Amino acid sequence: MGVLADMTWPQVKDELKEIRVALIPVGATEQHGHHMPLGSDSYCAFEVARRTADKEKALVVPAIPFGISHCHMSFPGTVTLSCDTLARVITDICSSLYAHGVDKFIFINGHGHNGPTIATAMDEFKKDKEVFMFVIPWWIAGGRLTKELWDFSGGNLPDGHAADIETSGMLAINEALVDMNKADKVVLGALAGTRIKFNKSTAVTLGDYPVELATISDFKQFTESGVIGGALQASRDKGEKVLEAVTDFLAELIRELKKV
Amino acid sequence: MGVLADMTWPQVKDELKEIRVALIPVGATEQHGHHMPLGSDSYCAFEVARRTADKEKALVVPAIPFGISHCHMSFPGTVTLSCDTLARVITDICSSLYAHGVDKFIFINGHGHNGPTIATAMDEFKKDKEVFMFVIPWWIAGGRLTKELWDFSGGNLPDGHAADIETSGMLAINEALVDMNKADKVVLGALAGTRIKFNKSTAVTLGDYPVELATISDFKQFTESGVIGGALQASRDKGEKVLEAVTDFLAELIRELKKV
Amino acid sequence: MGVLADMTWPQVKDELKEIRVALIPVGATEQHGHHMPLGSDSYCAFEVARRTADKEKALVVPAIPFGISHCHMSFPGTVTLSCDTLARVITDICSSLYAHGVDKFIFINGHGHNGPTIATAMDEFKKDKEVFMFVIPWWIAGGRLTKELWDFSGGNLPDGHAADIETSGMLAINEALVDMNKADKVVLGALAGTRIKFNKSTAVTLGDYPVELATISDFKQFTESGVIGGALQASRDKGEKVLEAVTDFLAELIRELKKV
Amino acid sequence: MGVLADMTWPQVKDELKEIRVALIPVGATEQHGHHMPLGSDSYCAFEVARRTADKEKALVVPAIPFGISHCHMSFPGTVTLSCDTLARVITDICSSLYAHGVDKFIFINGHGHNGPTIATAMDEFKKDKEVFMFVIPWWIAGGRLTKELWDFSGGNLPDGHAADIETSGMLAINEALVDMNKADKVVLGALAGTRIKFNKSTAVTLGDYPVELATISDFKQFTESGVIGGALQASRDKGEKVLEAVTDFLAELIRELKKV
Amino acid sequence: MGVLADMTWPQVKDELKEIRVALIPVGATEQHGHHMPLGSDSYCAFEVARRTADKEKALVVPAIPFGISHCHMSFPGTVTLSCDTLARVITDICSSLYAHGVDKFIFINGHGHNGPTIATAMDEFKKDKEVFMFVIPWWIAGGRLTKELWDFSGGNLPDGHAADIETSGMLAINEALVDMNKADKVVLGALAGTRIKFNKSTAVTLGDYPVELATISDFKQFTESGVIGGALQASRDKGEKVLEAVTDFLAELIRELKKV
Amino acid sequence: MGVLADMTWPQVKDELKEIRVALIPVGATEQHGHHMPLGSDSYCAFEVARRTADKEKALVVPAIPFGISHCHMSFPGTVTLSCDTLARVITDICSSLYAHGVDKFIFINGHGHNGPTIATAMDEFKKDKEVFMFVIPWWIAGGRLTKELWDFSGGNLPDGHAADIETSGMLAINEALVDMNKADKVVLGALAGTRIKFNKSTAVTLGDYPVELATISDFKQFTESGVIGGALQASRDKGEKVLEAVTDFLAELIRELKKV
Repeated sequence: MGVLADMTWPQVKDELKEIRVALIPVGATEQHGHHMPLGSDSYCAFEVARRTADKEKALVVPAIPFGISHCHMSFPGTVTLSCDTLARVITDICSSLYAHGVDKFIFINGHGHNGPTIATAMDEFKKDKEVFMFVIPWWIAGGRLTKELWDFSGGNLPDGHAADIETSGMLAINEALVDMNKADKVVLGALAGTRIKFNKSTAVTLGDYPVELATISDFKQFTESGVIGGALQASRDKGEKVLEAVTDFLAELIRELKKV
Repeated sequence: MGVLADMTWPQVKDELKEIRVALIPVGATEQHGHHMPLGSDSYCAFEVARRTADKEKALVVPAIPFGISHCHMSFPGTVTLSCDTLARVITDICSSLYAHGVDKFIFINGHGHNGPTIATAMDEFKKDKEVFMFVIPWWIAGGRLTKELWDFSGGNLPDGHAADIETSGMLAINEALVDMNKADKVVLGALAGTRIKFNKSTAVTLGDYPVELATISDFKQFTESGVIGGALQASRDKGEKVLEAVTDFLAELIRELKKV
Repeated sequence: MGVLADMTWPQVKDELKEIRVALIPVGATEQHGHHMPLGSDSYCAFEVARRTADKEKALVVPAIPFGISHCHMSFPGTVTLSCDTLARVITDICSSLYAHGVDKFIFINGHGHNGPTIATAMDEFKKDKEVFMFVIPWWIAGGRLTKELWDFSGGNLPDGHAADIETSGMLAINEALVDMNKADKVVLGALAGTRIKFNKSTAVTLGDYPVELATISDFKQFTESGVIGGALQASRDKGEKVLEAVTDFLAELIRELKKV
Repeated sequence: MGVLADMTWPQVKDELKEIRVALIPVGATEQHGHHMPLGSDSYCAFEVARRTADKEKALVVPAIPFGISHCHMSFPGTVTLSCDTLARVITDICSSLYAHGVDKFIFINGHGHNGPTIATAMDEFKKDKEVFMFVIPWWIAGGRLTKELWDFSGGNLPDGHAADIETSGMLAINEALVDMNKADKVVLGALAGTRIKFNKSTAVTLGDYPVELATISDFKQFTESGVIGGALQASRDKGEKVLEAVTDFLAELIRELKKV
Repeated sequence: MGVLADMTWPQVKDELKEIRVALIPVGATEQHGHHMPLGSDSYCAFEVARRTADKEKALVVPAIPFGISHCHMSFPGTVTLSCDTLARVITDICSSLYAHGVDKFIFINGHGHNGPTIATAMDEFKKDKEVFMFVIPWWIAGGRLTKELWDFSGGNLPDGHAADIETSGMLAINEALVDMNKADKVVLGALAGTRIKFNKSTAVTLGDYPVELATISDFKQFTESGVIGGALQASRDKGEKVLEAVTDFLAELIRELKKV
Repeated sequence: MGVLADMTWPQVKDELKEIRVALIPVGATEQHGHHMPLGSDSYCAFEVARRTADKEKALVVPAIPFGISHCHMSFPGTVTLSCDTLARVITDICSSLYAHGVDKFIFINGHGHNGPTIATAMDEFKKDKEVFMFVIPWWIAGGRLTKELWDFSGGNLPDGHAADIETSGMLAINEALVDMNKADKVVLGALAGTRIKFNKSTAVTLGDYPVELATISDFKQFTESGVIGGALQASRDKGEKVLEAVTDFLAELIRELKKV
């Protein structure tokens, strides 16, 4: 198993003799369209960690339930941490685990905007320490490992926000929390009447140049429902497959790290 | 219902038209003896909030799963935040909710050492705002509301650490995570060979004076198992009763606040 | 003696060979009704420390003359520190003293709202150090040690703000700074038209439940004069007695700590 | 023109009437192998900005000459800022420019590890402001726009550290500061004896999985000279071409933004 | 009068109708040789403020009793704040007073090393506010205003540390706290065997160049007693004169500021 | 040579075997009247460092191109850092260099308002380290070393802002960036209709008292062009002379420090 919240300290003590790998899910409490709940990113990140640890033992830390969600604040219920706050939370968690002997940290990121903050926290933490730190955005990695399942054509963006991959994952985890009748598809357009075109919420193209460079300030300007990309082709079955693929991969990563 | 993580943003939007009260569970990931899991404080705080909202509608924020647990760091698996980090998390959550219209905040505290940090965060947040902020340590309040259930004699300290009240609560919430065969009772003694005697982990008596004034640095110096007080008289039935009492009280508090 | 501000460094050096206990008065500059000066909390906390050190040698640090007084800012002259600022001051003082060999710290708190901040500062400072840290709100402790002197009936709250205990203390310390003709009595009522009733400025009762849970944002909403509780029964004699009792207690505490 | 450091304030005042776009070069002072100077990232980022502004008017802010270079500290002369420090510098620059009317910010990033910090600073800055913020790592964007020039085969990594693209750029900017006789090629291998293989300094592959997820703590463990990838195929001519391509692109971007 | 700590809030309210000038003494708790107490800087700064307010009404804030004393930490009893902590204290005090209507702030600095921190705090505070802020190191200003009293020859440095001016001031304020039999004279020499010569603790000369540029890290390396300069010519009479001169000057300054 | 940005890391490694002195230019991006560019302070500080290192080997760090320029923000193009930000940049630079073995730090300050922040950063950095830290405002030191060149009469203030010394220095460094036809002379007057008179931007006199004590909040209130003092007598020749004098002095200082 390895779910920290469900273990006693003597059980953790025993487990740490063998393994020194922690999985740290980083979630969010933010709008996910009309069809998915606000806790989707936390539920998914935690479940990816939990299923991974079932395949290859590792400590599963409680999911950080809040992330960097400034650009979703126009949608009621969204909770956002400042980048500084989240970085401190991550640092304190890593320091605590490191004190107990953990030296391999794998962040299971459930929300794109958390990425830079996790990266800066890692950059500071690893100074002067012999540690291995990884971060994996589960839906990006999962999406690449199951390319055949997803339709990337015409702005469908299955790895967008509350789109096919996330929706499928959530369906597999807790179908009751998803209402596919309210699923939406939103194709991103151009930036404020220019030739600068979005190809996802944090990237644009200009002319023929396939160069990533932008960031959206307020999702409300781009999507009424909150979805970016298409969620209409999601299914529980696809969700099981993408979770299977990404947890296989993570289990393999843990196995390799245990050799070090 | 009102569990934020399980709602969509349009559902939150609707609910905020009627109610502007948020319940914020503050937990911990820290040792709770040989018989209780590390996530006990988070599980209990969240469940108190959830059951309260079932009685009287309110928004239930995801539990903050980490708290101020410095003095438990000798026990493997404990994760501790600095007071500053936790204060920032609380502030960011309150700021986000306030932006959506929430102006009544009730912190359901699951861990004693979080108290001062919640208090300082509240003190700063409420400056220049018309808000109502409350904090309730569920096991203290619950314990007082069900005095007849608990044995306070001879250092049994049912409101100690991983003691009767918490253990009973956890039994009511998820029996599978508690192993009563490993429950312990630890009676606190004197401080380092002096006449200063502990009457709980954050309070002492000196001579006949019933004055509170101390704090324990490292629980390991006082308890081998991690328990402080007695957990031997805990039961699921007592747990249901204490949860019932404290959630009745909180529901009543919310009802009163809705009049404002 | 032991008043740090009045000693030369060679005198401190000598004293530190024997004793390693510091008394740190934490005051405030805040309204104390029409009858008491703004410096009351600082004067009282310092005097308690000074008289204690006369009974049992200890280093008396200069009083921190500002505290957490946000909720008194409607009254001209009040100066308030942020919780973070006060915590840093406390930490820097303790670090300095610790570098000189002090390992027992007793905070003499003169103002209730300073409590949580002192607690968080202590919590952070004592990590990884072998130190003993205590905090004692002098008027609470003193009040309990001299219960027979005070009238707790009918909302008189002798341990309220600028009430009987503080007023008596200040009369004993410097009668010229108190004008008993302007002393007031203010009984707290209910919160904003609800059944939630205050039983002191940081605690309420709801229905029959004797549970503490609230905090007042702006004292102006509850008291015109600034007093909370009754100051009408204060006297210099009572002041001498409460100071005597609390300094006896503290001297005893220091004696015990010197055995460690 | 538009180089802020070379303009008087009345000239800036005039220019701001027409244009509200700032180019902010973010550099580094860090090892670039035996063949390139420590200031390479700053020189390149600034020159990209300067040449862009020659094509399409924009304010060119002085290059931030230090970046996030923790993992290069084993190499003498490297200067590193904490992520927090760099984020504050960026925020203060943006706040100052915003006060003068700039509302479009394009960061010309010269060093990969600065990326997450720039992203977090942008995320915080754009809250509650109507601004457009872009970040472009010049050598990545430039490399993609001139794919035909570079040899990506066999771990040559032309966009690695001090590799072909950067070296070519520096040759074009100031040939005297590059010693091609000392250029090196370093092919990254596996992580600590595992099957986890680097495909650049911040990315690995595991088995057949093409998933990015790792970060190197200390470059010294991977490269003796400091180079990652190959610098042997660099030339001044290629440098001119990649600078031409990326500044064409940026000028086009500015033109589009001026329409908003 | 105008001593804030001794006034009631209605008295302050009245006084603020006429005057909006605050005097903020910034002291220190640091070694002052064998002959002066650790609180000398605080006592002097506060007394200068108090005597000034007797001449021309102004609010006298309680002295900040701790300063920047890192370089005195080798001497037992010294308490030092970090520059950041002191800056925050100053900012919070000014913010509080500003909220009550004060817009002229005069810092009476009692300790040289506090100077830069006061300056940075002022620099940040006055942004976007219509305020007047002054800082006056009382012994430097006083020394210049009474040049005829002091012997500046041969490294006597009457404005050094615990030297003639400070000692005389303290004699005038509280003779009982000074032991002239233990007064010392220490002439500063050269820096670590070089031709760089100190002309006070924060300034040197090199060759014939009268240029200031250095700072001492640890006073212990330069003075056994803690004194820098000469304290042998101090007298109570000189102390009265220097206090008279500097408070006359400050009263005049307040009078001028009241015209604005 | 010794210009860090232009050296490879093996060159730095070699140089550090002999010398352990770093020159750190601290500049600004701020208005310098109609006749000088915004980068003047950075250009001058860097050039002083570079020319010094040509005379006596030392490591020349890239100039910090932004400083404390709050009071110049009314002039377009000015960029200002908070004192805290600049202090962090300085600290990070010093920590990095210290890690490589540098233990003598000379700040070449190009802008008066940076002074207090550099001082606080030094004060914190040197705690617990055996380092030598100096700061020299080049135009003040240079001005004193070449007194015969400058006209200090009648408020001409050659060491004012964008005045004769700075203008001459900039002419010597890059004549093309200075337009002497637009040079100005501004004589400071009294403060807001009082008898308080400025004798430079950070100092006043009151009555006959030659005491420094004030600071200007917004330069716009005192000077339309941005100049304070006179720039009309500047010349390239004087610039060469003042640069020669101050770099001779600094080279001598480095020579002395190398003996330690």
